[in-house]
Amino acid sequence: MNSFGIKFRFTTFGESHGKAIGCIVDGVPAGLNIDEDFIQSELNRRKPGKSKLETSRKEDDKVEILSGVFEGLSTGTPIAMVIYNTNQKSGDYSNIKDLFRPGHADFTYFHKYGLRDYRGGGRSSARESAARVAAGAIAKLILKEVNIDVVSGVFAIDSIEAKEIDFEYAKKSEIFALDKDIEENQKEAIKNAMNKHDSVGGVVLIKALGVPVGLGEPMYHKLDSQIANAMMNINAVKAVEIGDGIQSATLKGSQNNDQITSKGFCSNHSGGILGGISNGDEIVIKVYFKPTPSIFIEQNTVDIDNHDTKYYLKGRHDPCVAIRGSVVCESMMALVLCDMLLLNMSSTINNLKKIYKKS
Amino acid sequence: MNSFGIKFRFTTFGESHGKAIGCIVDGVPAGLNIDEDFIQSELNRRKPGKSKLETSRKEDDKVEILSGVFEGLSTGTPIAMVIYNTNQKSGDYSNIKDLFRPGHADFTYFHKYGLRDYRGGGRSSARESAARVAAGAIAKLILKEVNIDVVSGVFAIDSIEAKEIDFEYAKKSEIFALDKDIEENQKEAIKNAMNKHDSVGGVVLIKALGVPVGLGEPMYHKLDSQIANAMMNINAVKAVEIGDGIQSATLKGSQNNDQITSKGFCSNHSGGILGGISNGDEIVIKVYFKPTPSIFIEQNTVDIDNHDTKYYLKGRHDPCVAIRGSVVCESMMALVLCDMLLLNMSSTINNLKKIYKKS
Amino acid sequence: MNSFGIKFRFTTFGESHGKAIGCIVDGVPAGLNIDEDFIQSELNRRKPGKSKLETSRKEDDKVEILSGVFEGLSTGTPIAMVIYNTNQKSGDYSNIKDLFRPGHADFTYFHKYGLRDYRGGGRSSARESAARVAAGAIAKLILKEVNIDVVSGVFAIDSIEAKEIDFEYAKKSEIFALDKDIEENQKEAIKNAMNKHDSVGGVVLIKALGVPVGLGEPMYHKLDSQIANAMMNINAVKAVEIGDGIQSATLKGSQNNDQITSKGFCSNHSGGILGGISNGDEIVIKVYFKPTPSIFIEQNTVDIDNHDTKYYLKGRHDPCVAIRGSVVCESMMALVLCDMLLLNMSSTINNLKKIYKKS
Amino acid sequence: MNSFGIKFRFTTFGESHGKAIGCIVDGVPAGLNIDEDFIQSELNRRKPGKSKLETSRKEDDKVEILSGVFEGLSTGTPIAMVIYNTNQKSGDYSNIKDLFRPGHADFTYFHKYGLRDYRGGGRSSARESAARVAAGAIAKLILKEVNIDVVSGVFAIDSIEAKEIDFEYAKKSEIFALDKDIEENQKEAIKNAMNKHDSVGGVVLIKALGVPVGLGEPMYHKLDSQIANAMMNINAVKAVEIGDGIQSATLKGSQNNDQITSKGFCSNHSGGILGGISNGDEIVIKVYFKPTPSIFIEQNTVDIDNHDTKYYLKGRHDPCVAIRGSVVCESMMALVLCDMLLLNMSSTINNLKKIYKKS
Repeated sequence: MNSFGIKFRFTTFGESHGKAIGCIVDGVPAGLNIDEDFIQSELNRRKPGKSKLETSRKEDDKVEILSGVFEGLSTGTPIAMVIYNTNQKSGDYSNIKDLFRPGHADFTYFHKYGLRDYRGGGRSSARESAARVAAGAIAKLILKEVNIDVVSGVFAIDSIEAKEIDFEYAKKSEIFALDKDIEENQKEAIKNAMNKHDSVGGVVLIKALGVPVGLGEPMYHKLDSQIANAMMNINAVKAVEIGDGIQSATLKGSQNNDQITSKGFCSNHSGGILGGISNGDEIVIKVYFKPTPSIFIEQNTVDIDNHDTKYYLKGRHDPCVAIRGSVVCESMMALVLCDMLLLNMSSTINNLKKIYKKS
Repeated sequence: MNSFGIKFRFTTFGESHGKAIGCIVDGVPAGLNIDEDFIQSELNRRKPGKSKLETSRKEDDKVEILSGVFEGLSTGTPIAMVIYNTNQKSGDYSNIKDLFRPGHADFTYFHKYGLRDYRGGGRSSARESAARVAAGAIAKLILKEVNIDVVSGVFAIDSIEAKEIDFEYAKKSEIFALDKDIEENQKEAIKNAMNKHDSVGGVVLIKALGVPVGLGEPMYHKLDSQIANAMMNINAVKAVEIGDGIQSATLKGSQNNDQITSKGFCSNHSGGILGGISNGDEIVIKVYFKPTPSIFIEQNTVDIDNHDTKYYLKGRHDPCVAIRGSVVCESMMALVLCDMLLLNMSSTINNLKKIYKKS
Repeated sequence: MNSFGIKFRFTTFGESHGKAIGCIVDGVPAGLNIDEDFIQSELNRRKPGKSKLETSRKEDDKVEILSGVFEGLSTGTPIAMVIYNTNQKSGDYSNIKDLFRPGHADFTYFHKYGLRDYRGGGRSSARESAARVAAGAIAKLILKEVNIDVVSGVFAIDSIEAKEIDFEYAKKSEIFALDKDIEENQKEAIKNAMNKHDSVGGVVLIKALGVPVGLGEPMYHKLDSQIANAMMNINAVKAVEIGDGIQSATLKGSQNNDQITSKGFCSNHSGGILGGISNGDEIVIKVYFKPTPSIFIEQNTVDIDNHDTKYYLKGRHDPCVAIRGSVVCESMMALVLCDMLLLNMSSTINNLKKIYKKS
Repeated sequence: MNSFGIKFRFTTFGESHGKAIGCIVDGVPAGLNIDEDFIQSELNRRKPGKSKLETSRKEDDKVEILSGVFEGLSTGTPIAMVIYNTNQKSGDYSNIKDLFRPGHADFTYFHKYGLRDYRGGGRSSARESAARVAAGAIAKLILKEVNIDVVSGVFAIDSIEAKEIDFEYAKKSEIFALDKDIEENQKEAIKNAMNKHDSVGGVVLIKALGVPVGLGEPMYHKLDSQIANAMMNINAVKAVEIGDGIQSATLKGSQNNDQITSKGFCSNHSGGILGGISNGDEIVIKVYFKPTPSIFIEQNTVDIDNHDTKYYLKGRHDPCVAIRGSVVCESMMALVLCDMLLLNMSSTINNLKKIYKKS
């Protein structure tokens, strides 16, 4: 169950403190220019240790392509990518070997599997998301070929919300902030939490631009449902909304409907999706991250024999997972769109004839 | 793409105004007592025309089992169920044949497939959800065998939220209201909208009780991601949250973490899921429905040749899809849990030996 | 596990003596002319009771389409088809309720599932194959749109092999014989077996014509592997070969290689498949059927309590399942090719651009 | 499409002359002792260059586990394994850059994907099978836990068939011969072909011992169909038979049926599978390999512009792919059985209760 997608499908492996993490990307159409620098640049956006507002674990996150590319082009065969772990400090985790960190997956992995790799959360570590970003970079290269772009940024931190949305600014911002006027307040909130040995939640906004009408496969592989699936698969995500989302539940039909004219939709409450299929408008998604469970305050917990104990964190941790999480959201969006793009190709007999007609 | 689930898998078919709708439920373990009265009673909860606050379309929604059951027990083979449409009025829809209703899937189905069954929304009609409820009833029968229960109710309508949560009350309520003290206000909101030829949104709360620790398959078939997937697949759903969900993005880690003692978790901000795996606590989900797009107010739209036109609705429609939608949410939750229950069986070598050890 | 295919996918249901059998066909591109007469004509080729050399069970096998078709065209939504059982005689099977017929699936179904629908073999009856033929007819309609044709016939019965191959003749032959000069000998072999209350095996030849280069998805969804999968899924099939198949294991490389010239391949030992991908030549498959296990001779067996007993068959049975099996093979071939046709559409970036390029 | 299996699933990557080949094995139950020496020993059985009757390409085939194992035990997370290519000689293949080798996948890969990695066949090289053997070794470790064993050997080479079957002897034989009295004749046949710059075909026999009753998932994931699928996915395989297979098509029902007594089946014509489900008897499979297409004799072919040309092979090649292919067959059998073992766990409600019942 470590694969995602049907026609464009990636499979990840690896633990926080194992030898390596990585992925196999399957279903990449042949003839795609595989720009390794771009893939690495995507990983660099996500990698830890870039700022004082992030974990101090430093990883090069240097990606190596093992297969599927020949003379710079995809060959239609699986593209395997590997990222060796270089800065794992297993010693840091010896104190959690026998207990469960509150808010983490320690408890559930142990009870599901009967044992666990406790070093840095093992498989449940956010470190796995580097493999998603590598796969997502391939997806983005495909999307570019048909002029689809995916952008993201941090919308809110600790209830402090962006007023203006500027995705270009977010790319340069240390915390991927969408609104430069709000950015300092958001940083302040993070620092305040850090000073109190605490952590904060946040909200990420993702948009897809240039998506053609027709992506999404009813009834059970709809575009919105797969986006929800993809986003909720990301560590620490607790809610996903499409378009007006939560607010739409408080509206009247006359307010929420997007009326249509010959020039297009008059509004975009729907977030660009109707009946689970893209309508040609911008895809608009918000993703809600809980605060990092790793806090430097003593907490109650139990050990693996269910004896009460106290837990006091050591180690290196992001005070706000939403920040680097935004890059992962962007990657997951690209991965979903890419799968949908390939799946939709056979929607009509006319499309079939476009591919197979004799010249 | 009309199937859902891996090990416990259902596939639906049918359009609003076709001959029949139905489903095939695959992966049902053999030896299950198939209580047909229970299945019918689940369908009765969802069926239209029960109240003045719903569409006046009356359907018997009489389900017929075609296969997979022998002498009252499941045989391990696929269970096909069919519900014949009896009260379709295709004449009602001739006026929308050549135009796209705002807020509906008409536009996207037409552009994706090049043609569409315009009668009552065709496949995109909420009528399809009856097949989900039939499948969900089978899932519930399996869950009962291991003492898992799923309950639901309407939490909010048009911003009016329940204060007290009473799932028993919701079962009897005409609008599946969770709070009897708030119910009248919620009904009033619906009636007000109806009087103005408008519609309202709503929020549904779903809980699963008795779920064992360990359900959910990382990394890409997590329990929360599959719940999000399942719920977002339901018509008119625009957001899904797990546990504290949206609110958790505004909390500190010290507030949001569920500390643990030998008697269990001290709180349930997580909604019963950690790292995508159930933690033994209650599973808590909220689902946000947009207002019914079908309103009796003139709206701007285009015809299939992209000419501007006006649309004025005829037909029969629910003023608040969240109400009957709550039954569908409950069914989808049961379906997800059932798949997870079967998938988790092979999580350990010990489990393997429990099944295959020689006596 | 009652579904087959990925992008073009069908799911079947139903037992020999249940209410109905049928299928859902998912992934049919929109805009296909659904010729119901053709679908029925395919079912008529397979249906029992047409000749004295077949079971005397008479079934109308009248297929009814429940969904997915609007004004004669596929809409891109699932096409459900149902065939009601009309001539089941459950009384015939009371004597096998508590024992296992040799050569049948009674033993394995009972031990796998703990119970079984013993009437006519239940789900394991060849009757299920009618649903495959209905689905296969849809597949054939799609294949026709790109000029692919699938043909079949009976190659051998009881070691008596065709010398000349005439697929046109096979269509008219009572036993689908490929060689009219051998047909009488083959019929004689069947009659001889019937007179001795016994049954005979047979071999079916299937070809696909007009298949473009490129169908088949390495590494684990190759064209030949999926054909083998599909054919071996048919009741009573015990071997499958591609091209020269078994014989190729006895050849030298210099004999078996198909050399190539600018006019095409010089021979077709490969059966039209290289590296799991169609090479543009005829696809050539042979399928080996065991003799019908239902014979009217007393046999040793055990009852469900593992007590020794004798079994003497009653009921109605084909003396040679390969005959009607040939129609099922042809259908399965069409179903595989159709899935491969859709899957291959995204093999190159160029194809992607053909579908999504802006005009 | 580079994955195989549902619940126990592996995905492979890599080309003959790329950096590395490898696989991700997903669905391994937690708590399995991962014996790395055993995995390496399986790879050593398949690796090239062990004998004069094989290709002279020498590869260490040293496998490295990157994830999924902690303190020697499987953790339930994906096990990634990588084998770096060390002895590729890309220079050998410059002469085939622009032409298609007869009997190879060059032609079809080029036409499907529009380009190809021509070095050593790229992805279509038999080198990929090392990844299957690594995955198969994990499968075997799981099977051992429930006392299932898989064995294999070379049954025939160039029409010279084994008379006696001795799987123990095969393990030690240079050509995995099943019959030591026939072995020399078989070797002679290979040498004769080598002397004539030609190659020979062969037949592999595989058995599975200790398989419980009940493995196999009707209707479209039957045990025999998945074995056929798995075997036909192996390079150069052109036919697969179960039990008496081809011969059973020439038998009478009275000869072919396996009668049953309270002590078990009286014979095993069925090869241990009835209705697609294991019956508790030995699983018996034969797999037919074509002769290696790589021969050192001039052949006609075309270049990528479809101009006639001659092809004369250089490079290093096995004269009989069936020999090392037998190890791959054995691995694929283990992989199929392992998937079936996990899938079958939820066949009954009783099994469900065994896992989830409260103690």
